[in-house]
Amino acid sequence: MVNRGIRDEINKIKTVVHGGNWREASLQYGRTPDEMLDFSLNVNPLGPPAAVLDCLKRNLKTIQRYPDPDNRGLRETLTGYLGVRAENVMAGNGSMEILHLLMQTLKPRRALIFEPTFGEYRRVSQISGAEISTVFLKRQDGFRLNPEVVSDNLSGEELVFLCNPNNPTGYLIPEDALREITEICRCREVFLVVDESFLDFLPEWRKLTLCAKAVDADNMLVLRSLTKFFAMPGLRLGVAVANPALILALNNVRDPWNVNILAQMAGEVALKEYDYMESSRALIQQEKDFLAGRLADLGLNPFPAAANFLLVDISARGRTAQDLAGPAGRRGILMRDCSSFPGLGPDYIRLAVKDHDSNSTLLRVLAEILHPEEK
Amino acid sequence: MVNRGIRDEINKIKTVVHGGNWREASLQYGRTPDEMLDFSLNVNPLGPPAAVLDCLKRNLKTIQRYPDPDNRGLRETLTGYLGVRAENVMAGNGSMEILHLLMQTLKPRRALIFEPTFGEYRRVSQISGAEISTVFLKRQDGFRLNPEVVSDNLSGEELVFLCNPNNPTGYLIPEDALREITEICRCREVFLVVDESFLDFLPEWRKLTLCAKAVDADNMLVLRSLTKFFAMPGLRLGVAVANPALILALNNVRDPWNVNILAQMAGEVALKEYDYMESSRALIQQEKDFLAGRLADLGLNPFPAAANFLLVDISARGRTAQDLAGPAGRRGILMRDCSSFPGLGPDYIRLAVKDHDSNSTLLRVLAEILHPEEK
Repeated sequence: MVNRGIRDEINKIKTVVHGGNWREASLQYGRTPDEMLDFSLNVNPLGPPAAVLDCLKRNLKTIQRYPDPDNRGLRETLTGYLGVRAENVMAGNGSMEILHLLMQTLKPRRALIFEPTFGEYRRVSQISGAEISTVFLKRQDGFRLNPEVVSDNLSGEELVFLCNPNNPTGYLIPEDALREITEICRCREVFLVVDESFLDFLPEWRKLTLCAKAVDADNMLVLRSLTKFFAMPGLRLGVAVANPALILALNNVRDPWNVNILAQMAGEVALKEYDYMESSRALIQQEKDFLAGRLADLGLNPFPAAANFLLVDISARGRTAQDLAGPAGRRGILMRDCSSFPGLGPDYIRLAVKDHDSNSTLLRVLAEILHPEEK
Repeated sequence: MVNRGIRDEINKIKTVVHGGNWREASLQYGRTPDEMLDFSLNVNPLGPPAAVLDCLKRNLKTIQRYPDPDNRGLRETLTGYLGVRAENVMAGNGSMEILHLLMQTLKPRRALIFEPTFGEYRRVSQISGAEISTVFLKRQDGFRLNPEVVSDNLSGEELVFLCNPNNPTGYLIPEDALREITEICRCREVFLVVDESFLDFLPEWRKLTLCAKAVDADNMLVLRSLTKFFAMPGLRLGVAVANPALILALNNVRDPWNVNILAQMAGEVALKEYDYMESSRALIQQEKDFLAGRLADLGLNPFPAAANFLLVDISARGRTAQDLAGPAGRRGILMRDCSSFPGLGPDYIRLAVKDHDSNSTLLRVLAEILHPEEK
């Protein structure tokens, strides 16, 4: 019978806990998704652009066709948005598919991961058979990632994962540090995966993206996501930017119809919604300041955050993440208990920045849980 | 730098030609998809069930949530339809994703493929690094697959692909031959992949499916597709049925949100549309008889076909597939030129069975091309 050993290896791979699991939460708290405010879900609180919903509604019947296997329309639109050529871009069924394809294509023997970060880097590495080196960034440094940390920890690793801004810490690598890190990887011939899934939330994202660099490099892939900023994770839509030879190789191993036709269409429409993009960035900036300030007033400790979510140290109030997440869940507020992130433990929650009303409700509920006597 | 050899291997993998490529055709013939009748696309001519379109329209806003990573609702509905337990079922981003995951999980050293058949079996085998043994079924046998052909050609292969009914020949393996083939594979410890993507079109599909067998076997996976019979290939939705340990292993290597939320929803709704299912089967039966009869009247030679498409030998009229497909395309009729299928060559086209009006248009256009003098 075909190789049993492989299955034993696979069975050792652990699934990763994620936010945004409304189905699980609704089973746990007995509420429908509409009866919950989900702060564990890092997507744009404005919801999908109206033009996207309109377009999907008008074109629902296209589901009876296969998606264009070449993703032509979407890739053309992406070239305008990202400022790269169509030959530098591929679309995936979420950025997860692209990560799997990349690992399958490069088969690195060892990969370097800076924790705490998005849990799927570890999982795709395990699936591809890579050994994993882990560096724990320090709380007292604000989970900062310096070029020195990268340089000092490279010894035989063939691939490095960076998430910028990082999930769940919200830390953004400054422009010059990022330049140094790419230079270190180039010199040491290490492949660099830069996950920019949350970069679109920053008004200055065009200055910070490594897309232009990835196009000319032979050791870099930039991951982008259209589903966080445009609030459509249900559709699945990720993007890779890299040199043409690597894009060609990834296309050679992917499914012919990997991106569904509605995601293709939604992506094309969303990327032209400039007003929506601007309002989204303004709203997030304003509400992030509001939320961070009020959380501090409550005696909680949010970290500086570049993206649309806040990592909050709650230890000063003598509570664990579970102490907050349980009671909040029963009141219809979901938050991300961060204890499943390697390197964090029970002292942290992650909160998405939502609209003002939702944020105010969250703050009221948190106050009730933290100061029950004042109710 | 990470393994260059792997990329060289990947670059040797050829993409597969498929029907249903309206985008390519529209570039070639200068017509919009709505101005073409696509007989190269093997989906239900009734279009998606109205209840599916209604449900998607009402629930478009759910794209702002992540899909349920466990696919609970869809899997429960599938258990009713397929008569197996939830632990025996997993859903994929089309059946293509499942094939990739399976090959990654089993890593067979050698795979056996009976040509002509669906081209992606060869491609996923190449991607997974399996050596491929090819057996060409014979035209004079009606491309029949006998148990003896399976038995005689197994020597060291660890995995066999069967497509039942087969694409593009339309050949259905009879019940007792199928039983023998599964027995041969069991005794010789060969893994059997049975692709039943087109089986739902047969009124007697429940008698013919190997789902119940796959559940108890440790060497079998049945692939099902919800996008051909329910006419929603744009959404991507495939299903695997196998023993619980294998399903668990496949779940361990798949993306957490592999199936988009609209596909999950559409699947749940479609699987309860019993009237639609019955009308679809009746329509296909009636129109297949009509189309096959008239094609024979035109001097063309359709093979007996179990599913919703006809393989047609056009050599008696002294034409090649290209001779027909080109002129038909310019008239807005797309057909599948089968010359890219190993073992077929230029003498064959494949035609989907569509509604009566469309079929009549096809026959008129074919008559015009074959008998231009009678125009």
